[in-house]
Amino acid sequence: MIHIIDKKRQGKPLSREELSFAFGGYLDGKIPDYQMSALLMAICIKGMTEQEIFDLTDLFIQSGDQLDLSDIAGIKVDKHSTGGVGDKTTMIIGPLVASCNVPFVKMSGRGLGHTGGTIDKLESIPGFRTDLSEEEFLKQAEEINMVVTAQTANLAPMDKKIYALRDVTATVQSIPLIASSVMSKKIASGADKILLDVKFGKGALMPTKEEAQELANIMQKIGDHYHKEVRTLITDMNTPLGNSIGNSLEVVEAVRILKNEEHNLLFELCIELASNMVSMGQEISLPQAKQQVVEALESQKGYQKFLEFVKYQHGDLSKLEISKEKQDIVAEESGILVAIDALKVGELSVELGAGRKTKDDVIDPKVGILLKKKLGDPVEVGDTLCTLYLGKNPVPDWVLECFTIEKQN
Amino acid sequence: MIHIIDKKRQGKPLSREELSFAFGGYLDGKIPDYQMSALLMAICIKGMTEQEIFDLTDLFIQSGDQLDLSDIAGIKVDKHSTGGVGDKTTMIIGPLVASCNVPFVKMSGRGLGHTGGTIDKLESIPGFRTDLSEEEFLKQAEEINMVVTAQTANLAPMDKKIYALRDVTATVQSIPLIASSVMSKKIASGADKILLDVKFGKGALMPTKEEAQELANIMQKIGDHYHKEVRTLITDMNTPLGNSIGNSLEVVEAVRILKNEEHNLLFELCIELASNMVSMGQEISLPQAKQQVVEALESQKGYQKFLEFVKYQHGDLSKLEISKEKQDIVAEESGILVAIDALKVGELSVELGAGRKTKDDVIDPKVGILLKKKLGDPVEVGDTLCTLYLGKNPVPDWVLECFTIEKQN
Repeated sequence: MIHIIDKKRQGKPLSREELSFAFGGYLDGKIPDYQMSALLMAICIKGMTEQEIFDLTDLFIQSGDQLDLSDIAGIKVDKHSTGGVGDKTTMIIGPLVASCNVPFVKMSGRGLGHTGGTIDKLESIPGFRTDLSEEEFLKQAEEINMVVTAQTANLAPMDKKIYALRDVTATVQSIPLIASSVMSKKIASGADKILLDVKFGKGALMPTKEEAQELANIMQKIGDHYHKEVRTLITDMNTPLGNSIGNSLEVVEAVRILKNEEHNLLFELCIELASNMVSMGQEISLPQAKQQVVEALESQKGYQKFLEFVKYQHGDLSKLEISKEKQDIVAEESGILVAIDALKVGELSVELGAGRKTKDDVIDPKVGILLKKKLGDPVEVGDTLCTLYLGKNPVPDWVLECFTIEKQN
Repeated sequence: MIHIIDKKRQGKPLSREELSFAFGGYLDGKIPDYQMSALLMAICIKGMTEQEIFDLTDLFIQSGDQLDLSDIAGIKVDKHSTGGVGDKTTMIIGPLVASCNVPFVKMSGRGLGHTGGTIDKLESIPGFRTDLSEEEFLKQAEEINMVVTAQTANLAPMDKKIYALRDVTATVQSIPLIASSVMSKKIASGADKILLDVKFGKGALMPTKEEAQELANIMQKIGDHYHKEVRTLITDMNTPLGNSIGNSLEVVEAVRILKNEEHNLLFELCIELASNMVSMGQEISLPQAKQQVVEALESQKGYQKFLEFVKYQHGDLSKLEISKEKQDIVAEESGILVAIDALKVGELSVELGAGRKTKDDVIDPKVGILLKKKLGDPVEVGDTLCTLYLGKNPVPDWVLECFTIEKQN
């Protein structure tokens, strides 16, 4: 193991046997944490070749089960976002795609740190079940063409163990490690095709568009390697997505978009993502697909599918609760709102109780942030910038740092 | 801690407070191994600024005791070699320096991996004590002007704990970490002046002369920072030093040199090192010092001092044992001997039982390698290249790989 770590420290590529020795040994408990974390840091800084990334992805996949979705009719398209603030796209595009006769069968994750997770958002709907068995998952997919659950099968346990270590050793931010982690789970979960929403900016894992593009390229190559069609969108996460951040609040915003009541940037992104999934799933052109998606939106077929989906998973939307205790945050200067810092807003939502600092934290679904101004809006002193929906936690003294207001000439 | 690791991962300098939080926390058991090893790997690859190295050295020093040698008359000069194969210089220069009226009071280490340690070599002399108390150490220094022991006081325990982790995480090879480790121990052990023998080449920590020079420069700067005179010699460790490798065998070679019976490269290096120490200790010019050293050698005053020193520490040279079981390794081709690989010879000595693979291995003082040809010697098929002195371990099948013989035109 020392020899393997040393090789990577010097920036040399590791063979599949060496990667298997290190990562397999770690999963089996034969390689201690402190050696794996040294290797992960060396990988973080020195990178990996394409072959190493393919090999690591494959080791992750082989470490667990692989879901067989072949009983579900149609081309199964999975979608993955690399994580952001206010990203409730899964709740919106799922019903749109499913109502266009493309199966939407997805395992989603929970939020950690400043980024939210779809499972937490859905669980804010009282009664909503996210712990479906594999049988329930497949049955629901066949019956209503849409299902979203927390991970059912034992998918990529090696990645899971490695991710937990990366999280506490500042080794999360590595393109090879992110790419192999994401793609191994997507491939193990049985998708035929994969749509990747790779985010860049303040609230994203990748700070710049160039790095997001690099991550997208290598994930694309992993897809090619497994003969899975992969499409990637590079999208901005400097600003939160939509105007709500926090679990119940985000469900409310998703519903508004599905009811065609809101036409913001989130709406645009959802149309683009859903159109791509329909295009991939039906093997039609993007404009043809977009026409179907817009029709599903305007006819409220998508909204009806969302209601069907929530009901099938035992959720009761009428019982959705948002905190009654509110506080408006008002501007102390006038000018133009030029930035809403996605990272700071994400951290604010965690402070308020909408997210987790550690895996064991319990989230409060009722709290969050409702943004009242968009980028480019003029702001006067005393205008409300956002409304905070509060739980047990106090309001941090730095909320105004989320907003940048520039004086007008 | 995650923030600190992440900062270093990005190559940013850490403040003294951050270093203290990380390294102090690790010594106290509050920071786990896996986080420290990630930080060490980031330091290994991204380096440290001079200020960081000064701060880390100081944290190492402050973590333990500092020896007070002020009761010993004269300027105390310590010497440190960064480790090599066949390096028995301490046993030779100690008596030469002490017989020139410069105190030679030294704490030495044991060997690990392919490099030997002075304490192991001295312990091959039956009866020789290396576990002197601080009182015994100081008393002997005053009485015979020379003492060498294993570490007595609790010097730099933080470095000790960090070194053990570096050893198993491929993070040994880092100029900032080597410099702070070496210099903290030298400064804590109370020397007034320090002579550093920084080795480069196949058998050394630093592969190239440039890297050895870089390590020497930063150690020099640490010395300046503590107002301690530091001199550095950059010396070659591509080839083993002298013709014997293995503990008893190296004592025999040291005695031959002290008796002025051998004039090889090791002899030259010892004259140079001893002259520098005498020059520093007496504050005289190098040529003046060299004259005294040569006189001590020719008059056998150095040899007499060695005998006095060994006797004082209860060693009995007459009982020194060398293995009776020998095997000659003969050349299978003819030509010129152009290389004797120090690393391979060091590894061979470990295989034979003269060194340790792990800290818990027990060494066999009687085994080793006696080189029979020098670089540049002509070699005929059947000529003996070296003689192996064997113990319980078999002879590896790759012994001839230690030697490179080039065909003559």
